Amino acid sequence: MIDKQPLIHRLCIIGVGLIGGSLAQALKQASAVTEIVGAGRAEASLQKALTLGVIDRYETELATAVVDADVVVVAVPLGAMFDVFAAIAKHLPERCVLTDVGSTKGSVLGDVRRAFGQAPATFVPGHPIAGTEQSGVEASFPELFRKRRVILTPLVETDASAHYLIRQMWEITGAEVVEMGVRHHDEVLAATSHLPHVLAYALVDTLARLDDRAEIFRYAAGGFRDFTRIASSDPQMWHDICLANREPLLQVIEQFTHDLAYLVEAIRTGDNETIMAIFRRAKHARDNLYLE
Amino acid sequence: MIDKQPLIHRLCIIGVGLIGGSLAQALKQASAVTEIVGAGRAEASLQKALTLGVIDRYETELATAVVDADVVVVAVPLGAMFDVFAAIAKHLPERCVLTDVGSTKGSVLGDVRRAFGQAPATFVPGHPIAGTEQSGVEASFPELFRKRRVILTPLVETDASAHYLIRQMWEITGAEVVEMGVRHHDEVLAATSHLPHVLAYALVDTLARLDDRAEIFRYAAGGFRDFTRIASSDPQMWHDICLANREPLLQVIEQFTHDLAYLVEAIRTGDNETIMAIFRRAKHARDNLYLE
Repeated sequence: MIDKQPLIHRLCIIGVGLIGGSLAQALKQASAVTEIVGAGRAEASLQKALTLGVIDRYETELATAVVDADVVVVAVPLGAMFDVFAAIAKHLPERCVLTDVGSTKGSVLGDVRRAFGQAPATFVPGHPIAGTEQSGVEASFPELFRKRRVILTPLVETDASAHYLIRQMWEITGAEVVEMGVRHHDEVLAATSHLPHVLAYALVDTLARLDDRAEIFRYAAGGFRDFTRIASSDPQMWHDICLANREPLLQVIEQFTHDLAYLVEAIRTGDNETIMAIFRRAKHARDNLYLE
Repeated sequence: MIDKQPLIHRLCIIGVGLIGGSLAQALKQASAVTEIVGAGRAEASLQKALTLGVIDRYETELATAVVDADVVVVAVPLGAMFDVFAAIAKHLPERCVLTDVGSTKGSVLGDVRRAFGQAPATFVPGHPIAGTEQSGVEASFPELFRKRRVILTPLVETDASAHYLIRQMWEITGAEVVEMGVRHHDEVLAATSHLPHVLAYALVDTLARLDDRAEIFRYAAGGFRDFTRIASSDPQMWHDICLANREPLLQVIEQFTHDLAYLVEAIRTGDNETIMAIFRRAKHARDNLYLE
């Protein structure tokens, strides 16, 4: 074919960790990008990314890193988002498309508006629902997004071609791109991701502080391993998520604790029918809703 | 070798489901038993076990099933334990060793004492910590117990040779046999198994009742799948466990809800240090305590 141009000429990835590194690898593997510039504060980590061939070069000055970039992907923890946006706001090339991979979208949008005055028309908020309990560029791999969903939450002011470019970029990684509103995204993720992490962390911490904790963990069966795997996730990342998505998270936690109290009361009073109704409904949902 | 006698001549398994069926298969595979008699109320299920070659014959009358048995394994749901013990109490051969596979030991001991007047010296309470979210004889397989722990909770009055026989029986399946007191067993299992199941059921039920439940489950990521897998477990079995182990379970739930409220308050007030301390402690425990 004559015009097999790469989708992106110069791609700047700020924050080359598990997500940023895997995106870089997937796009390189597909020859969808000419040059990838890594950027961030931790030079040792950037050097590792360079050595691994994940990026082509790196910059530690963000203002320099975004020079002549066609696309800038911000893949730093939520707590570092504002500082990154503030550092690049005056240096972003005019037609450069800006996107992020933050797990909460309301907070990122707020950070962008605070840093830029208003959200640039070329800003396309995104969230790949992928990841492992590992972190760092050494855990990254090009197939991370394959068959995973990437949620874009474009704004009314988002430029159509910027939006289309980011959609293409993610589709190249093998992801299925879906779209929803910012607020709705944050509510759905609070329920399916943030609340389970809070529960897993709280449970493991409770058990870890019991007197016989060594024995407790020794007799933990297979179900416990799966159930608590997410408590091995990066504490800083999940701290940031909990605070960035505080309102929807607190709302669904309140619903959950109310429901849990209802179940506990049924156990206390030996209310067979209520216990069975809850367990059956949950099993049915777990077994079936998934497949819809 | 001259005296390569099977460990058990006639084994009666009451309740040939996932656990009973897997035990039968493991012992057959090791030629550790001459004849396995299946017993229970559901004839269709016993017929299936017979067709699958898991048992050698079956009886639906428990009094008949235990005739001339050397070992009787009771592998029925906790809620059915008492009825089984009551049905066999007057028919158990004098030297026959009796054991069970119940997930809670205090309740089973109570059932035995109620049915027999006092626990027979040949009664060895046991609990294999193995299982999947599947159930039924068709899900059984001989390797289920390999490298899993089996907890025995022998009583002061337990006969030493009965105790030793059940220990050997489980070791033949590839399990590691450990021992602890009845009460301690129930507290450890409440923390590592029963509480996680209650939380998983409650969480999935909460989400399943939200207005946008279909969407909620659609965007659930890998962590959610693992976290909620145990909510696919058999509702009747877990109903029985929650009620049979009510007191230790309610106690650890109370500890957990207290700790969760503390974490939620830290999220509400943006208390970075408290959130980080909890998440870090949990990650450390999950990553390390396991290996002890």
